[in-house]
Amino acid sequence: MDYQVYEPDDFVVRSGLTLRDARLVYKTYGTLNEDKSNVILYPTRFGGTHVDNEYLIGEGMALDPAKYFIVVPNLLGNGLSSSPSNSLIPFDRGRFPKLTVHDNVLLQEKLLREVFGIEEIALVVGWSMAAQQAYHWAALYPDRVKRLAPIAGSARTTPHNYVFLEGVKTALMTDPEWRGGWYEKQPQAGLRAMGRVWAGWALSHEFYRKHMYLDLGYSSLEDYLVAYWEAVYLKRDANDILSMIWTWQNADLSDNGIFNGDYEAALGAITAKTIVMPGLTDMYFPPKDSAIEVSLMPNAELRVIQSVWGHYAGGAVSAKDVGFVDAALKELLLSNDVVSRRSDYWNVSNG
Amino acid sequence: MDYQVYEPDDFVVRSGLTLRDARLVYKTYGTLNEDKSNVILYPTRFGGTHVDNEYLIGEGMALDPAKYFIVVPNLLGNGLSSSPSNSLIPFDRGRFPKLTVHDNVLLQEKLLREVFGIEEIALVVGWSMAAQQAYHWAALYPDRVKRLAPIAGSARTTPHNYVFLEGVKTALMTDPEWRGGWYEKQPQAGLRAMGRVWAGWALSHEFYRKHMYLDLGYSSLEDYLVAYWEAVYLKRDANDILSMIWTWQNADLSDNGIFNGDYEAALGAITAKTIVMPGLTDMYFPPKDSAIEVSLMPNAELRVIQSVWGHYAGGAVSAKDVGFVDAALKELLLSNDVVSRRSDYWNVSNG
Repeated sequence: MDYQVYEPDDFVVRSGLTLRDARLVYKTYGTLNEDKSNVILYPTRFGGTHVDNEYLIGEGMALDPAKYFIVVPNLLGNGLSSSPSNSLIPFDRGRFPKLTVHDNVLLQEKLLREVFGIEEIALVVGWSMAAQQAYHWAALYPDRVKRLAPIAGSARTTPHNYVFLEGVKTALMTDPEWRGGWYEKQPQAGLRAMGRVWAGWALSHEFYRKHMYLDLGYSSLEDYLVAYWEAVYLKRDANDILSMIWTWQNADLSDNGIFNGDYEAALGAITAKTIVMPGLTDMYFPPKDSAIEVSLMPNAELRVIQSVWGHYAGGAVSAKDVGFVDAALKELLLSNDVVSRRSDYWNVSNG
Repeated sequence: MDYQVYEPDDFVVRSGLTLRDARLVYKTYGTLNEDKSNVILYPTRFGGTHVDNEYLIGEGMALDPAKYFIVVPNLLGNGLSSSPSNSLIPFDRGRFPKLTVHDNVLLQEKLLREVFGIEEIALVVGWSMAAQQAYHWAALYPDRVKRLAPIAGSARTTPHNYVFLEGVKTALMTDPEWRGGWYEKQPQAGLRAMGRVWAGWALSHEFYRKHMYLDLGYSSLEDYLVAYWEAVYLKRDANDILSMIWTWQNADLSDNGIFNGDYEAALGAITAKTIVMPGLTDMYFPPKDSAIEVSLMPNAELRVIQSVWGHYAGGAVSAKDVGFVDAALKELLLSNDVVSRRSDYWNVSNG
């Protein structure tokens, strides 16, 4: 695969452990301009890599590499960046540190600063767990993030979202072949079970009511459950999945030394011009939860994706949804109604 | 427990197998009047017994034993009526016949006719899987069911409902202690996993958003997941649960020799005066699915329960919801706008 690797010195994570040989895999698209003002940060989602992000990048699109320098860092735990499956003894597999969204963001910030000298970001955009990273960025660095576009995500994982993840997680862990993470080969029954539990959550009632799995080329509902849902998880590493689920379940933009759990203060600190885009039929991140978060942000607008694709609204599956998101991102990038950083701040912090 | 048992001769079920020593456990409330016109049939739900139905029965309520003769038959597979856990070799445990909602209804019809000489039913009412039984009754015996009240259920299980049940089922079956149904002791890890998967589905986003599990007396979210959800399934027999889930997944009021799969014809055959009551936030049986079914029934009205209790809307948990349902049932029972049977039909069929 075509990517770059950032390997900083030891990186101490929120739990107090140290990620030795920390590894942040990323890919960039386009060219950084001279005043470093054309940066878009676009993290990856649960279970995805930078390749899965490319549906929103392209000539003529909002994320146009001819205009912007787009940085796509891979989520810790995804199997490319530091993960249970690629880490060394003694922090490998079942002993891989629990990592937070906050840890991800701090490591990404180091990458941008140390490798590229980037401080100001024109837009942070992300879908699903990447939306969670985007919210964290905007709260932790309000004077550096000018625009924000969280798609089908949340700033803090809700109790329902947590419970649904308990279900998919437990289905996997019920397979004794998982062995608490110390398997020699993947726990296949558990991975298949996880896929089957996930199937009901990811799409919408409408998707199933209209038998849209047939339109995707599957020959029946059961064919879809096996050939798509079981197959997807059979390709993955069990510990990597569980690592990312832990990160997701514990996402909270206020759980850090700045906001000390004050969720309203953390959302209130986000000055970036924001368009929040939940999917109408998303059962992970329903629009109501996004509406609550928007109400707590000083410069945010709610724009619901009128999609039947459940959580996949704004993902790569629907051209219509992608068009909707792309149009919003274009509007956001054209807007100059943003808080500008003081020009001397940049020089000082790089002094 | 206080109940009656109906044990007919051999009962041939839809799969072609024979339920030998078939056993239908039921309980009646009130007294059958002379012309047998005061009958309410009120089947039980998934995993429940007649005792769990009693929240809608009482003096001054719609289902008043001073006025009506209320018959509550227990669902096949529930551990009281014929079930994997109480059936004899060779049809015990992992070899218990697959039973349909249709099979349940035919057996209930035999009970009413053979034991009580009942043909006409003033009202069939039921919640969840009992709503499915109610729909089947009204389609199979349109000239005998005068009123119908399905609460939080469907006439045919939707693809999404099927998929969500695949998830809970698979979580249980992933425990190798299940042994394809031939366990000597219950597969505890699987039952616990099933409970955890179920937790996300049964309640609503709103329930979790408002931390309503705390109002129920649990000390935290995890306490609720263990002390309620894991505990509920640990009390059950794995094969019994899987038997009822099979029945649920395959519910279809048109899958029989009368309608031969013509779903619209089956719903169109329901002449009973009907109030369909889905719960606003029910993720099993969302109001949209009920609206579609109502649109295909000639004499039905949709009345959505404005509840935050998810699938439990119209169940026993919320006094407000119970009041809403009870009021609708009273209105339905007072209504004389129903198709009456020809008086001589009764004499003929009992001649």
